[in-house]
Amino acid sequence: MDVFFNPKTVAIIGASEKPKFGIGTTAYLLNSKFKTYPVNINSDVIFGHKAYKNIKDIPDSIDLAIIMVSNEFVLQSVIDCIEKEVKGIIIESAGFAETGSAKFAKIQDEIEVIARRSKIRIIGPNCIGVTNFHNEFTTSDMDFEQALKGSIAIVAQSGVLGNIFIDWANNQGIGFSKSATIGNKVDVDEVDLLDYLNEDPDTKVITLYLEGTKRGKELRDVLGKVKKPVIILKNGRSDIGSRAVKSHTSSIAGNDRIYDALFNQYPNVFRVDNFYEMFNIAHAFATQPLLRGKNVTIVTGSGSLGALACDEIEKQGLNLTNLEKTTIEKIKSVIPNWVSIGGTIDLGPSMFETFIPSIKAIFQDKNTDCILYIFSVPRVPLQRMASFALAGIKAQFTALLQSAEKYEKPCIIVCFGSRWVFDFVSEGATQPESKLIIPIMTRINQAIKAFKMMYEFGKSNIF
Amino acid sequence: MDVFFNPKTVAIIGASEKPKFGIGTTAYLLNSKFKTYPVNINSDVIFGHKAYKNIKDIPDSIDLAIIMVSNEFVLQSVIDCIEKEVKGIIIESAGFAETGSAKFAKIQDEIEVIARRSKIRIIGPNCIGVTNFHNEFTTSDMDFEQALKGSIAIVAQSGVLGNIFIDWANNQGIGFSKSATIGNKVDVDEVDLLDYLNEDPDTKVITLYLEGTKRGKELRDVLGKVKKPVIILKNGRSDIGSRAVKSHTSSIAGNDRIYDALFNQYPNVFRVDNFYEMFNIAHAFATQPLLRGKNVTIVTGSGSLGALACDEIEKQGLNLTNLEKTTIEKIKSVIPNWVSIGGTIDLGPSMFETFIPSIKAIFQDKNTDCILYIFSVPRVPLQRMASFALAGIKAQFTALLQSAEKYEKPCIIVCFGSRWVFDFVSEGATQPESKLIIPIMTRINQAIKAFKMMYEFGKSNIF
Repeated sequence: MDVFFNPKTVAIIGASEKPKFGIGTTAYLLNSKFKTYPVNINSDVIFGHKAYKNIKDIPDSIDLAIIMVSNEFVLQSVIDCIEKEVKGIIIESAGFAETGSAKFAKIQDEIEVIARRSKIRIIGPNCIGVTNFHNEFTTSDMDFEQALKGSIAIVAQSGVLGNIFIDWANNQGIGFSKSATIGNKVDVDEVDLLDYLNEDPDTKVITLYLEGTKRGKELRDVLGKVKKPVIILKNGRSDIGSRAVKSHTSSIAGNDRIYDALFNQYPNVFRVDNFYEMFNIAHAFATQPLLRGKNVTIVTGSGSLGALACDEIEKQGLNLTNLEKTTIEKIKSVIPNWVSIGGTIDLGPSMFETFIPSIKAIFQDKNTDCILYIFSVPRVPLQRMASFALAGIKAQFTALLQSAEKYEKPCIIVCFGSRWVFDFVSEGATQPESKLIIPIMTRINQAIKAFKMMYEFGKSNIF
Repeated sequence: MDVFFNPKTVAIIGASEKPKFGIGTTAYLLNSKFKTYPVNINSDVIFGHKAYKNIKDIPDSIDLAIIMVSNEFVLQSVIDCIEKEVKGIIIESAGFAETGSAKFAKIQDEIEVIARRSKIRIIGPNCIGVTNFHNEFTTSDMDFEQALKGSIAIVAQSGVLGNIFIDWANNQGIGFSKSATIGNKVDVDEVDLLDYLNEDPDTKVITLYLEGTKRGKELRDVLGKVKKPVIILKNGRSDIGSRAVKSHTSSIAGNDRIYDALFNQYPNVFRVDNFYEMFNIAHAFATQPLLRGKNVTIVTGSGSLGALACDEIEKQGLNLTNLEKTTIEKIKSVIPNWVSIGGTIDLGPSMFETFIPSIKAIFQDKNTDCILYIFSVPRVPLQRMASFALAGIKAQFTALLQSAEKYEKPCIIVCFGSRWVFDFVSEGATQPESKLIIPIMTRINQAIKAFKMMYEFGKSNIF
């Protein structure tokens, strides 16, 4: 499997300079440290590199072949690759079983048979392949100047997980280890990748988007074996959704309750509702220690958002922390009389002066198992305070980071408002003297769900 | 009530040049078209304007007094305002019943009694007052250079709805008519504002964030009278959430089922789960025609996102459109053979060439009641195509806007990816030759919920 993420030599079958699907990958790989050969029946030179008519003409052994030709030429390309004795093939071309065409469904079946016989591993068809964020190998359109390295792996039956959501996640400060889009899965599937990623030292958390599995038993076995958190989005809950996945990756969505029952068996497997939730929760797992108890302490400048967080805490079966008397006294000694301390620590607009002594007391409190910090300062006054405000907030975040490190308690910031405020908080929370990354989310329910799952995983002791 | 949104003369009691709460409002109003007098017992001049020791010293009649002094001086300020015979008072100061202090709860009660006796209307305490986006009057920190005018009104027991979420919404292209934050509600409450906004010509949709009501019967009556859509977020569903609202605005959250039953009585009242949903759905109501049937047509470049949308359609009790044969034939005549048309119209990466003829046929189809357009093109290839891509996408959006206007069918775009892509789509969808605004959201479930509510409201015939 490692050949997909760390090949020494690569051939791109259907490489082209034309502005079509694959041009970005071709341009990138030809000028990368991964020795890459373009193959195109109609061109002699591609982006200044000698092109070959057929992969078999290349005077070098090939680790990985990427196939991007039209659907009708894919089968012959696969046969050529087998003869060339490549180690792995990624078929990005679409237009097989998912179209409903009997002819192309049959071709897909033939490729499947060939794969099984040859023992050469094949990813796809109908996908955008893989990315390894650490060595910067990609068969997709990845912008490594913006892509963040991290420890979240992606396995997905969808191209949008290979680029669009990575791009979104990078904007949120979320980084990745490896991604693999697996399309119609003639050979390599979620089972193989879960097995591989369980042993991958760069990966701490695995995210999986599944439209259906052909290997229920093996999926059950591998989920029982994996020791890392696995965050799963499975669609096709509805009848019309099931028909839609059939025409997307030709998958059988199956009975949704069976999947629920399957996932519920494992304390490291968590099902989520959308991609944003999937990556935010994975990011919390990737960066935070686990919860040792169920108590969430809320620090906020907004009473309404604090109250909404309380509803979520109860919904997830967690507790609002009952702080120790000494903690309450410490906080009361620094806040003005018009600030209200109910269950949540609502510092209101006094946040600036009172945050640092309060946050230290809260982390230190033996009843606090994790901290939800709801940042809700409007943009306009922040901008008015300008540079000294940033210094003030930096000092606050320094205190937050230091306390989180010292007491080893998980913390999530939920930030509300405009993009400007999000960037302001991100800048404040990124401090060169601290290696700790604190997730910054925009939804309270996702933060509370993350805490819940980190509590469940922590309790299981399977890691 | 109009005095709160359109006062001719204003006094700010507790006006100050110091960098504290209220400085922005003071600086803005003193230099606005709204004749404003600063009142401060310790200053003679504030931002170059003569300051008065007491509101009673001002040699002019005052429509609206804004009180920003510390909680202990609020009662006397209210008494002064009554003697001055102002028409309306906004008390922004916090520190009353919500703190749990018996002393300040009693002061709040006294203010309530005074309000009832004097017939002078009071908003607050513990709020940030109001904004009128059309005449640019505000008692909060509003940045009118960025704030968008629109037809959504906000009534909220929370300061964050008076600035932070407006700022976020403006980033999303969502505009407002009026906002009122009502805090502890000694006098003016949701009932008064619903009644007022129902008659307000600038307002088409009302959003309401409620922590609890003291006037259940009147709320029921006014909801029965309002002819506009009312989108409500009510928290305190949980026990700990109820305690939190008590310490925020001293509200009694009440039995959540009673609120559900109340809201369910009215076909124009919709309960939502979070603020993002509230404003996105309100924006759809404010800008789109209503649905005449339950059929949603999905146009997408991503099979997985299309399938997820199908699950949401079934969850909300809507239908996936069964397109007419002639429509399918028209689309099949322009798309390549590897594109898959199942229930959803998944144009895949061929979207660029095939979008325009497809979208026209889809809008024209008599079975289509509304269109969900899922924009899922990755950033990197878009940036590579640069200027001519934007021209291409502009042409697509022109076709979309023209079809939406011609066939009067509601349309929502859901856009995935980085901020850059969102801005790219926003720019494309904003065309000077078209007055139509198409909402651009980032969550499929919110778009489908909006369609569902617009269908229910349309069916009710109460508008």
